[in-house]
Order: sequence, then structure tokens, then C-alpha cells
Amino acid sequence: MSPNSPADDRAASPGDRPPAIGLVGLGAIGGCLGLDLRARGHRVWGWTRRAEAAREAEVRGIVDGADTDPASLRAADVVFLCPAIGAIAPTAERLIPHLRSETVLTDVGSVKGAIVAAIAPRWENFVGGHPMAGTHESGMAAAQRDLFVDRPYVLTPTAATPPAAVERVAALARSLGARLYTCAPDAHDRAVAAISHLPVAISAALIAACEAEPDPAVRDLARAFASSGFRDTSRVGGGNPELGAMMAEFNRAELRRSLDRYRAALDDLAACIEAEDWAGLKAQLAATQNARDRYL
Amino acid sequence: MSPNSPADDRAASPGDRPPAIGLVGLGAIGGCLGLDLRARGHRVWGWTRRAEAAREAEVRGIVDGADTDPASLRAADVVFLCPAIGAIAPTAERLIPHLRSETVLTDVGSVKGAIVAAIAPRWENFVGGHPMAGTHESGMAAAQRDLFVDRPYVLTPTAATPPAAVERVAALARSLGARLYTCAPDAHDRAVAAISHLPVAISAALIAACEAEPDPAVRDLARAFASSGFRDTSRVGGGNPELGAMMAEFNRAELRRSLDRYRAALDDLAACIEAEDWAGLKAQLAATQNARDRYL
Repeated sequence: MSPNSPADDRAASPGDRPPAIGLVGLGAIGGCLGLDLRARGHRVWGWTRRAEAAREAEVRGIVDGADTDPASLRAADVVFLCPAIGAIAPTAERLIPHLRSETVLTDVGSVKGAIVAAIAPRWENFVGGHPMAGTHESGMAAAQRDLFVDRPYVLTPTAATPPAAVERVAALARSLGARLYTCAPDAHDRAVAAISHLPVAISAALIAACEAEPDPAVRDLARAFASSGFRDTSRVGGGNPELGAMMAEFNRAELRRSLDRYRAALDDLAACIEAEDWAGLKAQLAATQNARDRYL
Repeated sequence: MSPNSPADDRAASPGDRPPAIGLVGLGAIGGCLGLDLRARGHRVWGWTRRAEAAREAEVRGIVDGADTDPASLRAADVVFLCPAIGAIAPTAERLIPHLRSETVLTDVGSVKGAIVAAIAPRWENFVGGHPMAGTHESGMAAAQRDLFVDRPYVLTPTAATPPAAVERVAALARSLGARLYTCAPDAHDRAVAAISHLPVAISAALIAACEAEPDPAVRDLARAFASSGFRDTSRVGGGNPELGAMMAEFNRAELRRSLDRYRAALDDLAACIEAEDWAGLKAQLAATQNARDRYL
């Protein structure tokens, strides 16, 4: 362990200093957490597999120090797991043997059911978390201050999660300026399926449908005419394929429910068009126009 | 006829002055056309049903003068029909008895097949048109300069449209800085169904699907968590219901084709999710990510 690791500081001034933070996964979200938490007086220690990433995180001021040895997080009071969704549970598995039992473990994954189901039985002080802020860039270079201000930060404890562990993460989330929500993992997954994962699927299908136009001359016109309506509606369907597939994989059950509900809603609109029921179509569009304000 | 109507000017200086313009429908698009065409030296005369609108258009500099009498457009060389889609053909019907046979009539409607089918048999020098620029506001107050610069301006002549009439409108469209396209009315309608009318339907269905969540607590979470992905994907589905219904009504056949193609595309994505074929899903999302660049 490096002489600057958080353990040394704890030994030097125990008690009233802010909780020491461990950071695993030094990408955009982990980087933002590191910058913000250090600015609030926390010692932040990173664990990463690549020594160059450890050095870069130090240079960028994301961590006080970083190491390739998971044992370097032993002194941390709260550890944030910030790798890609699919790597969160396996990374927790590798880390757990090195943690003190009182350390609170939390993650930042955008699905919660599968992750909580995998980690909670292995670590009592685990609190599923999802800070709902994103950068369009990925990687440590995209890290920025105050990304979480006024954004939702969702915690998904189970009935067995110790309240003190929840409060420890909640206090950190609040200190970042986030709006704190607490709900069950499956309620989180159902809500994000509807407003985040479903949009990726329906937006991708728009692009695929335009590309499926059989007349190449018409397809060229569509490409030339596409404007703000197409741009906005297709944006998330043109996003990172790995991320889209991973969200679908880890939130499959809820995404399927959302897709079923979506197809029924589209059928309702199509039925009006089929029946030339323009008053009915206008009423449905007036309802969606009105409803959208409740989300934004 | 007012002493300032275009007829007087033509009499005073015939020959090489820019074509005199008639403007019907003094809303946002008509207003933008008036501002731009006057700035390019055209005399612009408006016909509107409301005397107050005529005065307001004069005050705003959208027209040189405006009148409630359709006969006031008799001197116009080119008349732009700019009312709402459903009013274009009926308005042309009322105007036609007052026009000189050499006057070129064009419209700005966002569907072309139904409008061209209604007007072309009644007026030889009719050229269907669609300047593909929009303001988010409507009404004369939303009129602004240079709205059409670098935007598509589509003309949809038929085999029977005189080439000189097409060239007259084309020259005006080019003078506005627009990118000119010429295609058949049904090719236009198919292309805009895909990139403009289909997005409204699929975006509205997203809002409706979120609202159909049966658990009110989850619905509240979805509303609280909704972010840029939901915002962009739902934007056009939360737009003007009258406009959405009217586009569906006037472009019904092509919108139905687009919806069929869309449902097939969504089924392809859903089939991967159903089968847990994550490599297949990733490949589809990589294809849409790649394809989107061809549109924007």
C-alpha cells in the first residue's frame, strides 16, 4: 500500500473527518464522483487494473491516489463501483475479500434488480445506486464537476439493507447536489425501462424503418429531408450499441413489459389512422401533448 | 383595389422588375416568405379574410399591402398558398376565379399527393411545393428572415406541369437560399411519412406507453427520472395535435406503409430481446448507429 493511501490518514486523524471514498472504475461517472467528492473534502482512493489509468486519474485530480491492488481500498468507508453494468457484480466479487465488514459498498449501474440480486447476498452493507446523469462522452477525460447537481440519484435498498448504510450513501448523494430517491430495485428498473431503455429500442426502430424503404430514390429523399423531428426522435437509437444491448440484457424483463405496452399504444394510434378517425387521433395526440409536461 | 396594389406597379414599370408575389395565409411560413421576398425586391401582396391580419402584416413588413378581397391578387405573377394543409385546396378554389391564366400558383403544404390531385386539374400553372423549414411558434409573430436558408425546398410537378411554371417557383426558392429538390408528389409523401409523420406517431406512443404504467408509484418515478433520452424521443409526440392529425389525414396511405415497416423493424429488435440474442441486438443497434449519419 502506498504511504498516501487513505488508511494512513485515518490512522493520523480518526473520527470526524469525512468518510474515505474508494472508487472502482475510473470512467466518466467514476471520474465525476472523484472530482466532486474530493472537492467536498473526502479522501478518494482508486482501484483500477491498469497502472497508466491510475496515474492519469491522479494527474486529472480524480483521486488522491490509485492502485492496481484491490487491497488498497481496505481503508475506504464507502466504495463506489463504477464499471460498465456487466462488470459491476464480478468486480464486487473480486473486491469483497479485501473490504472491512463495515465498509459500505454502492454502485452506479443503470439497472438495479440484477445487480442487487447478485451483490446484496454477498455483502450486507451493499446499497444499490443509480446517479441519473450522463455525459455524452465516455472515459476519464469526460469527467467534470457538478454533473449530479439537481439530477435524480436513486438508491434501491432491500428489506435487509442496514438503514445506516443507506443513510451513508444518501448523505454523499445529497452532498453532490442530487435529488435523492429511494425505491425497490424492480420499481427502479420498471421506471427506467419506460423512460430510458424503451426509447432506445423505439428510436433505433425508426432508423431501421427508414432504411427499409425499398425505393432507393425515396430513401435518398428521406435522407435529404430529415430534419429536427427525425434528429431528435432517432438520437438515442443512434447511440452506443454496446450500452443499448447491455441495458436490454440486464433489464430484459422490464423492457419486454415496456415494449408490450408500447406496441399496444402504437396500435391505438394506428387504429385511428386505419379507421380514419381523425377526431380520435387528435384526442390521443392532445392527451400525449398534455401528459408530456408531467415528465419534463 | 388599393392604389398600392401590385397591378399599379406593373402598369407603371412592366418588364424587368422581379415577379409580383401574392401571399395567401399570413401565418409563420407565409410571414417568412413575405419578409424574405420583399427583401429581395419583390412586391408582395397579401390576401387574408381578416382585415386586422391584413393591417398587422403591413405593420410587420410581411407585405407591401394586404386586402380581404381575393381579386386583389389578380396582378400577382406567383401566388404562394400558405394556409393550414386542410385549407389549401378550398382556398385555391376560391382564389382561382380571380387569377390571370399566366399566374403561377404554388403551395407550402407538408403533404403533396392530395393537394396536387385537388388543384392541378383546376389550374394548369400549379406547382406543388414544400419548403421544409419550420418555426416552433406559429402565427405571423413567428415570422423571421432567412428561415429557408440551406433547408430543403421540394417541388412536386406532374407530367402535365409546364416547365416554365416550375422554373419560376424554383428560381424563387433558390433566391431564398434553399436547397431545391424536385420529385413526384407520392415520392415526397413517402419520404416525409418516414422522416416526419412516422416520428410523430412513434413518439406519441412512447408518452402513451409511459402513462399506461399501471402502478402509480412507478409512474411517478418514471416522471421524476425522465431525462434527455425521453425528452428528445417524446418531443414531436408532444407537439400540436391538430397538425399531427392533419398530417396523418392527408398522408394516410404513406403513413400506414411507414407504420407497417416500423412495426416490422421493432419486431426485429424485440425478437433479439425475446431470444436473448445480445450479439444480434448489438449488431442491429450498430447498424442503426451507422445509418443515422446518412440522414443528418
